[in-house]
Amino acid sequence: MQTRADPPRVVVIGGGFGGLSAARALRKVRAHVTLVDRRNYHVFQPLLYQVATAGLSPGDIASPIRWVLRRQPRLKVLLGEVRSVDTSARLVQLADGEPLAYDYLIVAAGAIDSYFGHDEWRRVAPGLKTLEDGLEIRRRVLLAFERAERAADAETQRRLLTFVVIGGGPTGVELAGALAEIARHTLAHEYRSVNTRAARIVLLEGGPDVLAAFPAPLRAAAARDLARLGVEVRTGVLVTHVGAGLVEAGAERFEAGTVLWAAGVAASPLGRTLGAPVDRTGRVLVRPGLSIPDHPEVFVIGDLAAFVTARRDDGRPVLLPGVAQVAMQEAVHAVRTIERAMAGKPSEPFRYRDYGNLATIGRASAIADFGWLRLTGWPAWVAWLFIHIMKLTGFRNRVLVLVQWAWAYFTYQRSVRLITGTAASRDVMGD
Amino acid sequence: MQTRADPPRVVVIGGGFGGLSAARALRKVRAHVTLVDRRNYHVFQPLLYQVATAGLSPGDIASPIRWVLRRQPRLKVLLGEVRSVDTSARLVQLADGEPLAYDYLIVAAGAIDSYFGHDEWRRVAPGLKTLEDGLEIRRRVLLAFERAERAADAETQRRLLTFVVIGGGPTGVELAGALAEIARHTLAHEYRSVNTRAARIVLLEGGPDVLAAFPAPLRAAAARDLARLGVEVRTGVLVTHVGAGLVEAGAERFEAGTVLWAAGVAASPLGRTLGAPVDRTGRVLVRPGLSIPDHPEVFVIGDLAAFVTARRDDGRPVLLPGVAQVAMQEAVHAVRTIERAMAGKPSEPFRYRDYGNLATIGRASAIADFGWLRLTGWPAWVAWLFIHIMKLTGFRNRVLVLVQWAWAYFTYQRSVRLITGTAASRDVMGD
Repeated sequence: MQTRADPPRVVVIGGGFGGLSAARALRKVRAHVTLVDRRNYHVFQPLLYQVATAGLSPGDIASPIRWVLRRQPRLKVLLGEVRSVDTSARLVQLADGEPLAYDYLIVAAGAIDSYFGHDEWRRVAPGLKTLEDGLEIRRRVLLAFERAERAADAETQRRLLTFVVIGGGPTGVELAGALAEIARHTLAHEYRSVNTRAARIVLLEGGPDVLAAFPAPLRAAAARDLARLGVEVRTGVLVTHVGAGLVEAGAERFEAGTVLWAAGVAASPLGRTLGAPVDRTGRVLVRPGLSIPDHPEVFVIGDLAAFVTARRDDGRPVLLPGVAQVAMQEAVHAVRTIERAMAGKPSEPFRYRDYGNLATIGRASAIADFGWLRLTGWPAWVAWLFIHIMKLTGFRNRVLVLVQWAWAYFTYQRSVRLITGTAASRDVMGD
Repeated sequence: MQTRADPPRVVVIGGGFGGLSAARALRKVRAHVTLVDRRNYHVFQPLLYQVATAGLSPGDIASPIRWVLRRQPRLKVLLGEVRSVDTSARLVQLADGEPLAYDYLIVAAGAIDSYFGHDEWRRVAPGLKTLEDGLEIRRRVLLAFERAERAADAETQRRLLTFVVIGGGPTGVELAGALAEIARHTLAHEYRSVNTRAARIVLLEGGPDVLAAFPAPLRAAAARDLARLGVEVRTGVLVTHVGAGLVEAGAERFEAGTVLWAAGVAASPLGRTLGAPVDRTGRVLVRPGLSIPDHPEVFVIGDLAAFVTARRDDGRPVLLPGVAQVAMQEAVHAVRTIERAMAGKPSEPFRYRDYGNLATIGRASAIADFGWLRLTGWPAWVAWLFIHIMKLTGFRNRVLVLVQWAWAYFTYQRSVRLITGTAASRDVMGD
């Protein structure tokens, strides 16, 4: 394969951080590259919670994949849904249309929400993985306040103004913090029959701490900031039932008009079609060079890959976290390995460089762990803001997000408070 | 009623230009005001076509009604769907919940698309009245290019890259012009298998001219600009059939992947529940003071009202057009009449002041008719741009739209090119 005269065909599955970084890194490689995604756009996931909480528009954090890669004339972007990979025939099977043949394959299909075997919870408690998820959460949150305004009795109002967020990772904390700000500030003067400031926001975490990936002093700072915002944080709480208007965690019951899910992820089902070993959540156990066993031409990167960095005392593996920087560094390594293979050189093991970890709680409140430097409060928030603006795809998006954040900072407003989507559109659009 | 000690209850139905202007004008009136709309936001309709053509986000042209009216503490905003009005009992019936009692009523429920008795055309050819309509059109237009890129044969590509816009009013012209710009400029370098520049955009108009409301020299300028953009304009063409992928107009057939409807409006069905006479399209025939016969306390304004200004030679009435400035002036007149009634004074006839008429065709291309001044090309476009920015609701929206227009002007980009919605979300969201 490496000695053919024709440039090799490289297929990249997925237009997230991993896939897009791979496509960009391939720009200097003499190869026919095809990137396939079922969406025509890349989403800047770290700001998805701002779409869900009416701070930004979907268009502000998403960029058309074609546009991002427009300067790579030999790269082809395909809108299509990948069903499976036939690693022995080296074919990517699409839901519709001809299969794609490849010489090298980079699979970056990402993760989906996991309800730990309780898929019936999904309807009640939407997760936050896609733009549509974000718009659905926005719709539910805003509708809860509208319904409370129209509710006849205090009991119903109380239930409608109770929001339960399940999962105390960065997404759960961001959602809970933003909900508290919406209730206490943004909407405080706009309702007549209901006091939005009295809204109850509960954050449930199964482990002993929220933001468990951070060191103890930073976790403590985050907990203080959440308390200051009036978020009830319950740790060590395992959810046993999620039903319409009700969350049960053992003996505890929460009557909540809105329940959001930020508790678990599972790998894309595509991983199981590769014929490689997967872990309990479906992540593909990759080799040190990010390829899969017996197929040095197939790489799995990002949230779909289980890359073991160490073993715990009990033998359980320590994996790289499912964050953008891991996916992006893995993408570059996979492309470099393809280049080496084309030159007849062997694969090298992947090594992750951790540049730091940030999480935001709310206005002027965040935590940042750069290893050599730890920040909380305002300085951490400024670091968070600066880094996110810089990493956002496209100059236009950066300007738009900056304008809106400045506006939000000075006015406490979240201006994309539109209740759009399913229920309403069915009426209007006649289907 | 006018002599009661309690302030009267005024109900406003609709949060469009008419309803919102009425609510604002009521701020100085000693009355309990309730505005009810089935959406929680006001849409700046003149820029809806930019949402449909990926130039702006829904959030850029919409504002939460509550936020717009937040400084009126005695005004209540209600999210609800009005089913009918019982003018004898003075009650507004909601689809869910208690009816609203009123002493004065302002009905500004607006218009919907009309398919001239062919409601089966709606599925094939969506109209452009709501944000959801705009997103649906955006989805179809962008998907057509994606499908063309994946199409196997030239015949299919040609069909997928044919866009038919039915209706040569301002909306039809704006859509056709924007589609031409998308195909010839925005997407020109991003596809590999298909030449988007070869796309065919057809604008069908039943009457003898597009933009018939404008004087002949301006119509001619608009026709020239459309031709320059490569839009095929067909006038005097009556559509006889709209089916999947096919539009028939008499003997002419257009095989088109995408068909858009901008041909006709009908009044909101709410008008027929008032018990007042309506015209053929369901508009309520209002009295000279904008109230309905026998009910001086009920006003109908905006697109729902048929206000006769004159009669043609054949006896047919000349009506005020369905534009924002008519609705807004009528709103102010209705509120003034309520104030006069509260002071025991009689109603006065409404008089419309026409400040001018604008339509845009594309980049640096528009026509403007201010009566004393007619503009075409670049000057008209600058006037159009300036007026629309000024009239947009909210300072934030103005800044965001300006940033995006500047970006679009210099790059030819339309950055909200996201294929979101129904088809895709069903997969992802698990319902």
